[in-house]
Amino acid sequence: MIVRLALDAMGGDKGASMVIAGADRALSIYRNTDLQFAFYGDGFLIEETLKDYPSLKEISEILHSEHIVTNHTKPVEAIRKGRHSNLGMAIDSVRSNKHDAVVSAGNTGAYMALSKIILKTLDGVERPAIPAILPTVKGGTIVLDLGANTECTPQQLLEFAVMGESLARLRLNKENPSVGLLNIGSEELKGNTIVQEAFQLLKSVHDFNFYGFVEGDDIGAGTTDVVVTDGFTGNVALKSIEGTVKLFRHFLQESIQSTIGGKIGYLIARRALKKFKKLSDPRLYNGAPFLGLQHVAIKSHGGTDDVGFANAIGVAIDMVRQNFIQSVQEQLHKVFDTKE
Amino acid sequence: MIVRLALDAMGGDKGASMVIAGADRALSIYRNTDLQFAFYGDGFLIEETLKDYPSLKEISEILHSEHIVTNHTKPVEAIRKGRHSNLGMAIDSVRSNKHDAVVSAGNTGAYMALSKIILKTLDGVERPAIPAILPTVKGGTIVLDLGANTECTPQQLLEFAVMGESLARLRLNKENPSVGLLNIGSEELKGNTIVQEAFQLLKSVHDFNFYGFVEGDDIGAGTTDVVVTDGFTGNVALKSIEGTVKLFRHFLQESIQSTIGGKIGYLIARRALKKFKKLSDPRLYNGAPFLGLQHVAIKSHGGTDDVGFANAIGVAIDMVRQNFIQSVQEQLHKVFDTKE
Repeated sequence: MIVRLALDAMGGDKGASMVIAGADRALSIYRNTDLQFAFYGDGFLIEETLKDYPSLKEISEILHSEHIVTNHTKPVEAIRKGRHSNLGMAIDSVRSNKHDAVVSAGNTGAYMALSKIILKTLDGVERPAIPAILPTVKGGTIVLDLGANTECTPQQLLEFAVMGESLARLRLNKENPSVGLLNIGSEELKGNTIVQEAFQLLKSVHDFNFYGFVEGDDIGAGTTDVVVTDGFTGNVALKSIEGTVKLFRHFLQESIQSTIGGKIGYLIARRALKKFKKLSDPRLYNGAPFLGLQHVAIKSHGGTDDVGFANAIGVAIDMVRQNFIQSVQEQLHKVFDTKE
Repeated sequence: MIVRLALDAMGGDKGASMVIAGADRALSIYRNTDLQFAFYGDGFLIEETLKDYPSLKEISEILHSEHIVTNHTKPVEAIRKGRHSNLGMAIDSVRSNKHDAVVSAGNTGAYMALSKIILKTLDGVERPAIPAILPTVKGGTIVLDLGANTECTPQQLLEFAVMGESLARLRLNKENPSVGLLNIGSEELKGNTIVQEAFQLLKSVHDFNFYGFVEGDDIGAGTTDVVVTDGFTGNVALKSIEGTVKLFRHFLQESIQSTIGGKIGYLIARRALKKFKKLSDPRLYNGAPFLGLQHVAIKSHGGTDDVGFANAIGVAIDMVRQNFIQSVQEQLHKVFDTKE
């Protein structure tokens, strides 16, 4: 099976050099997959950069565009340029089935706006959602939405739940993933009317492993395979978790460096601490699909490096190979047809 | 100066034994303060437990009640019993100025409901808020609200900002604390209308160190001294952070124990890792005032131990000694009188 990927060569804080190094890395990781890349952006720059990667160059196509979507491009601007910008072209090549998936580390607003317009949403999906896999004691939990929709209806939360469940089957290899609805702790303050209504909706779905309400600390505990929430709360939760990870690394480093025993201990325990770093490496969780679109579009963190970008490419490859779009559409139909 | 404290002897997962051990610990920590305790609850049980703490017993009073507020008492039930329950009695003793502050590790809903009714809110405060001090790279940041108000108006967020700022002066020893408004990251999706309006309100306050919008990861980074948000988002952020702390400790332990080098390194670096544990010890941040009431009421975590409870008592002592209620009321008046 050939997997043909459209890459935004100009996205991310480090641009073409990072994207191309990431693609090269993905090429060697997924050497058993028949890969083809198309780089969309400044043709001259891409050509120059590819010179250092001969085997990648062999399977790559360069698609030049005058109009580059940057971190400063506003969504409205991106939409106006439409399929003429490098990012618009890349997305459109997936719509026309020239490629199987698009990956970009570019600006989320413009990427999401263009993807929504060009790729369209699946039957039964109002608006797409952005999920993430967060590390947990048990492995990983899928949390969505992470910022695409600041205010959500109960119906949208239900859609997120169904899509998150499908993603958990693919990415977490779970047969019957459990789904929790994010709420706050106090018994007597069980959240707002939206989560209450979404709770009732989710309970009414047949053959669906709905766990009920979960709280913020259930994310790290891995209580459920999927955690559903609106984009405002989800984004704050994600960023709070990221901030805590940074804080802990800081504390750990500070503690270790403050004593001689700490320094010696560190030298001896280095391998163990490397494992710790690896377990908590955000690059390994990089690559979030825009869930609910008719084609595969993957968003990479803008600040990632080639390791992280290769991981985002890996997510695209997995979703294409597993025919994810079709299975999530089937799942959506099943739920909306059988719901009471 | 005598500080007279009313303690809910029955609150928390471990009840009287934890509360009394905590009071005894506080007594030795604050040995330069003239402390008096009153324990509200099952008189016989309190009497029995106090036998092991002769110096504490000397400065303590026991106030028996037939009606105990437990973790299962619903707020409406607690309100019905009113000043007849142990917790209601303790709170009322503060209203009548018999005591200077009340501390409870009991159930948040009942405690908050009773405090609101009995102690009343300050002039200019619609509803009280629950803050927490969270550890940051720079020391600590006050985040509020953490669950008392699931949906907030822009005006309420402004009140939280003013109260949080006063608390930062007291608890973080900052002269001119900076205040951030929690929002989500994407440039083009700058949150909902409520945070937008609150932003404008906060900008219009004179002599107020308003930083602007912050994101979830700014909490751990300590970007501002105070982070203001509604109770739903704040609670999710707090719990997500707590979950991540637990997860990291798990990862670290797992990594260290998985190799011999890790184990030896741990033995050598033990002191450093203990410092790390201490920096991240939630007990040290235990004790949250119900901000916006006319008297000092402190909520301790239900699952804490005597170290954590002593810390909550310490917060009460600080607030009483610094005359916090008066200064927050003055600050509220100043802001609401001078606002454009």
